[in-house]
Amino acid sequence: MFKLKKNEKIEDLEAKGIKIIQAKDSYRFSVDSILLLNFVRLKNFENIIDLGTGSGIIPLLLFGKGKGLSIYGIEIQKDLADMARRSVELNKLQNGITIIQEDFRKLKNIFKNQQFDVVVSNPPYISLGKGKINPSSSRAIARHEIKGDLEDIIFVSHYLLKDKGRIYLIYKSAKLIRLVITLKKYGFEPKVIKFIHPWPGKNANLVLVEGIKSGKEELKIEDPIFLNFNKKKEISK
Amino acid sequence: MFKLKKNEKIEDLEAKGIKIIQAKDSYRFSVDSILLLNFVRLKNFENIIDLGTGSGIIPLLLFGKGKGLSIYGIEIQKDLADMARRSVELNKLQNGITIIQEDFRKLKNIFKNQQFDVVVSNPPYISLGKGKINPSSSRAIARHEIKGDLEDIIFVSHYLLKDKGRIYLIYKSAKLIRLVITLKKYGFEPKVIKFIHPWPGKNANLVLVEGIKSGKEELKIEDPIFLNFNKKKEISK
Repeated sequence: MFKLKKNEKIEDLEAKGIKIIQAKDSYRFSVDSILLLNFVRLKNFENIIDLGTGSGIIPLLLFGKGKGLSIYGIEIQKDLADMARRSVELNKLQNGITIIQEDFRKLKNIFKNQQFDVVVSNPPYISLGKGKINPSSSRAIARHEIKGDLEDIIFVSHYLLKDKGRIYLIYKSAKLIRLVITLKKYGFEPKVIKFIHPWPGKNANLVLVEGIKSGKEELKIEDPIFLNFNKKKEISK
Repeated sequence: MFKLKKNEKIEDLEAKGIKIIQAKDSYRFSVDSILLLNFVRLKNFENIIDLGTGSGIIPLLLFGKGKGLSIYGIEIQKDLADMARRSVELNKLQNGITIIQEDFRKLKNIFKNQQFDVVVSNPPYISLGKGKINPSSSRAIARHEIKGDLEDIIFVSHYLLKDKGRIYLIYKSAKLIRLVITLKKYGFEPKVIKFIHPWPGKNANLVLVEGIKSGKEELKIEDPIFLNFNKKKEISK
């Protein structure tokens, strides 16, 4: 039996029996991760890496989406990486999922060039110097660009991914232009974009992007997601 | 009384009594122009220029959107420019709308730098060498990039617009990345984007973009337009 620390609890993710350890008063996975998970397309036997994996929610739930997947979750924070590793053990998925405690800017020391088919990341949203820094340090690192920003993620993804490899990101839609410019700068073509709106009639707040390394110029804008589809109907009554 | 040519007819646009001359077997304005018109924000007394005005639909319908507007419509094709000019006369709007027959790449010879508040354009969609060239020459020029392409439009718009001036474009959403990159290249920040989907559940096919010359980085993704909102409902029955 593995050890559950004080202030930790086990949550059933209600997906193929997968469970996850969560810390009550620190970082918790958000709806962003679920949206990103549902957006990722995977083929069997692909090698996948999640940059900034947090509690490990993305590797844990991606694993069931294909046969023979190999997934690495990278997390810089020791406590979070340890918790994610124990969640992997709890689900007996050590053969498919590996959690590594590391700064993703240093992954060139660990992985070979072009080792992966897919990068997934829910990057920090808020530029340093903007927004309030959350007093809880683990939350602050996950939300702010303290340890590695968007450009670092895309830069290292270019190193990690094979030609035609895919990168999946969720980001603030207000910063989509910067995301697109940065992807292009490092040789990624945005191929699929899907917006998330709080409800019909409201501007989007989040965007999902699939980029392809050395992909051809042709963008698909999928039908958007309205998180609360019924809200509009209530208003229009 | 002005002259109506053979194969021309007058259509009532059902907007403040505005009428337009249309050629039956040649270029006709499309739903794109209407979508673009509705997307444009105008303030009173602004100077506006429509690049590739065609039948003049955009100047004619924009004119009522503000007080004391001055609108130029630029059209390279002699017959179309002549028709648009006669439509302006038909509506007695010569004081507010001026149609000029000219290649918009040569507008530096006619207008001063930073003379305009707003550029509007429904640019050609199809790159040369792609797609079938329409045998009707006036349609071919309007749809294809024979006379001036997207980059020419944005380049000349940078010359024509004041600092913080706005450019409004409608374009194929599949080519949004190229549009964004080109806007940024010439100093425009995309500020508002709105997608057009044929119906709910379908990918977008068109995109409306507002760019601001020397604007700050902050993008608004508006709720999308579904051209046929009821189609989804029929399918889901």
